[in-house]
Amino acid sequence: MVDKYASWVPSSGVFPKGFKVGSIATNVKKNGELDLGIIYNTHQHPPESSLTSTAAAVFTTNRFQAAPILISKHVLEATGGKGIDTIVINSGCANAVTGEAGNQDAKELVEHINRKTSKANSTLMMSTGVIGQRLSVDKISNGIDRLFEENNVSFGDAFESWLNLAKAITTTDTFPKLTSGEFTLSNGVSYRLVGVAKGAGMICPNMATMLGFIGCDLPIASSALQNIVRYAVDRSFNCISVDGDMSTNDTVYMVSNGAVETDVIEEGSTDFYKVRDQVVAFSQQLARLIVRDGEGATKFVSITVKDALTFEDAKIIARSISNSMLVKCALNGGDANWGRFLCAIGYAQLQNVQSLDLEKISVSLVGSEEEEPSKLDLVLNGVPELQLDEEKATELITRDDIKIMVSLGTGVEECTFWTCDLSHEYININADYRT
Amino acid sequence: MVDKYASWVPSSGVFPKGFKVGSIATNVKKNGELDLGIIYNTHQHPPESSLTSTAAAVFTTNRFQAAPILISKHVLEATGGKGIDTIVINSGCANAVTGEAGNQDAKELVEHINRKTSKANSTLMMSTGVIGQRLSVDKISNGIDRLFEENNVSFGDAFESWLNLAKAITTTDTFPKLTSGEFTLSNGVSYRLVGVAKGAGMICPNMATMLGFIGCDLPIASSALQNIVRYAVDRSFNCISVDGDMSTNDTVYMVSNGAVETDVIEEGSTDFYKVRDQVVAFSQQLARLIVRDGEGATKFVSITVKDALTFEDAKIIARSISNSMLVKCALNGGDANWGRFLCAIGYAQLQNVQSLDLEKISVSLVGSEEEEPSKLDLVLNGVPELQLDEEKATELITRDDIKIMVSLGTGVEECTFWTCDLSHEYININADYRT
Repeated sequence: MVDKYASWVPSSGVFPKGFKVGSIATNVKKNGELDLGIIYNTHQHPPESSLTSTAAAVFTTNRFQAAPILISKHVLEATGGKGIDTIVINSGCANAVTGEAGNQDAKELVEHINRKTSKANSTLMMSTGVIGQRLSVDKISNGIDRLFEENNVSFGDAFESWLNLAKAITTTDTFPKLTSGEFTLSNGVSYRLVGVAKGAGMICPNMATMLGFIGCDLPIASSALQNIVRYAVDRSFNCISVDGDMSTNDTVYMVSNGAVETDVIEEGSTDFYKVRDQVVAFSQQLARLIVRDGEGATKFVSITVKDALTFEDAKIIARSISNSMLVKCALNGGDANWGRFLCAIGYAQLQNVQSLDLEKISVSLVGSEEEEPSKLDLVLNGVPELQLDEEKATELITRDDIKIMVSLGTGVEECTFWTCDLSHEYININADYRT
Repeated sequence: MVDKYASWVPSSGVFPKGFKVGSIATNVKKNGELDLGIIYNTHQHPPESSLTSTAAAVFTTNRFQAAPILISKHVLEATGGKGIDTIVINSGCANAVTGEAGNQDAKELVEHINRKTSKANSTLMMSTGVIGQRLSVDKISNGIDRLFEENNVSFGDAFESWLNLAKAITTTDTFPKLTSGEFTLSNGVSYRLVGVAKGAGMICPNMATMLGFIGCDLPIASSALQNIVRYAVDRSFNCISVDGDMSTNDTVYMVSNGAVETDVIEEGSTDFYKVRDQVVAFSQQLARLIVRDGEGATKFVSITVKDALTFEDAKIIARSISNSMLVKCALNGGDANWGRFLCAIGYAQLQNVQSLDLEKISVSLVGSEEEEPSKLDLVLNGVPELQLDEEKATELITRDDIKIMVSLGTGVEECTFWTCDLSHEYININADYRT
């Protein structure tokens, strides 16, 4: 077994200016581990400036949305995403299916923080953990008090503080998910991004599949930021499949505080797309970490559908393959079972029937993401490779990292999904989790 | 473990008049078991009559449709379903993803039978088994010759012949699926129905999830029969979920030969609906047998979504719960995990947003299909049952047969799905099937 912690958790980082983070154990998690984290923007623009920190969000489309989502949506609507300075995240209790009482609990905590920071409508919340249980408002507000006491001494802006935050938001994760980096725009100035996430396949009642936060020190309008986050989520967190289930708490927030005081990035400019590419890459990195931490996963599998008529149909096909239990079993068993890939392609509910031409489709195996030259065709232009090199196929598909490439031959669009295999361990984890 | 064969295979039956069936081992299946079956209608109406046997069909919507489907569709189009007298079914080779050569193979066999019965355009075909392999036309046409030699002496119309046919069409099934019965219409005359099916979750390359045949001795027009079969399939074979995958070969045929020479059943008449109810019940019986034979299944689970705004949305929700890997794991582990049920309801892609009102939904457990009075509410009008009788919940959900009831409270429509749990054995069967 790979040591996932050693392989995937960084040991240093470079973080956006102006953000401070603090984490604490409130005893909501019964094992005494960190279970409350706060991300706090300390950079304030002068009162005469029209600039503020800006926030954007993408929430689960599950009809049962948890209380922290409902409350945070109100805050975003009231502010248009301007002036969001604090993100509070608790783990151990999802505050989901808790009705109006649960909404009041979330609201009380959010307003408690607003009082601490002396700024109304500046806090968003995320929760993850057991559903159907009320939040311990006392424990959490006590934790908030302790974090903010003595001039915020518990907050830090260095690697250790961010790593603790990443730990504080985990539930069944086997490792914290943290990434950070620097990029330069056309003005020659460098900016920094940080990303944290939690997720390891959905466990109900510890049901939140994933939470994510991305922070940046760029000045940018909320509407532009919202476009970037929506675009990035569609190509990252919405392109992973551990078990195909979707939770009540899934949330991704991005906050950009403009602590590097350059001109505001204009939507549609070259720099806007550069930033978008950075956020996509960051989101994909975090998304891949969630798949690597998939419950019971023994394989990390990239499924790229290319030469497609539309991005949407490329995604629908990639998702169909990624979610197929039979494909996941074949991957677990190291079986290059192209028939199952074709099946899943064939029953994908495409938006445009012309996206799929049975005589143009090719399916190949590639050793890993980096090794495209070593690809082995399983099906070429709709015809199965009868003289298949089974030995090579087995060698490729029994690796820890697998890449499956589907070429539709009907266009130029492309989408990559990341998935994992279905193992006995997944069933062990999920068969009697609650009891 | 339940002895599935003893529990679910009948030991006698009453079959529609005029049908004869024959089965034989052609050595396509390497273990020498029965692998070719023919259902043959011997009842011929007088030449001056406009009556003929009639056929209807429902095929997989997978874009990769196998050769027997393409060929049979041509026959149905050419004849309008009139005069179909023979169904030929082979197991061991699915004749799927075999291109134009595969189509020619299927066509050759169908025409070979038409010559034997001296009647053009009277044969439909179904195949199930390994994909990507050519059909052994020689072995199968030799088998056909042997069945039809010596005045069709190998054909029979009694229980043993039908049971052998049900065996001949199986692949990974652990028991043959056969059912038969009698019903009476308003004219006081009794008619007979027979149903056979194969299926046990989709195995690729033995990929045909299911094949089904229903025979009847009623006189009825093809168009009326097509409506009945479409309606019945929507409420039976399309309401089962073993693993959510769908194959290239899925086919259900119904043939009614009018051997009981009464008036033709008029579409829309009281008797038409009586017949439809019979066919629905038969199809559901066969569909449930396929779930009972689900790969690795240890539980048989009915999921009824009632009080729904539309049948379609009831079905979408029932399917969403049935296909959820997390629900299947909870069922396997005997965990009354209502949070997972709600999750799957919440992410169902409904056609009408008003079908789901979070404050009206109730979820209950019922001991078995017959035991509605013993139901235990898990969620009532959107509120989780906080004082849940966990002991009773565990007692109900650890039974072999489980019923989950969801009331949406938004209408009067209802749909039932049948599913099974996800077990270690499923992974064992599917992890290295091909190699």
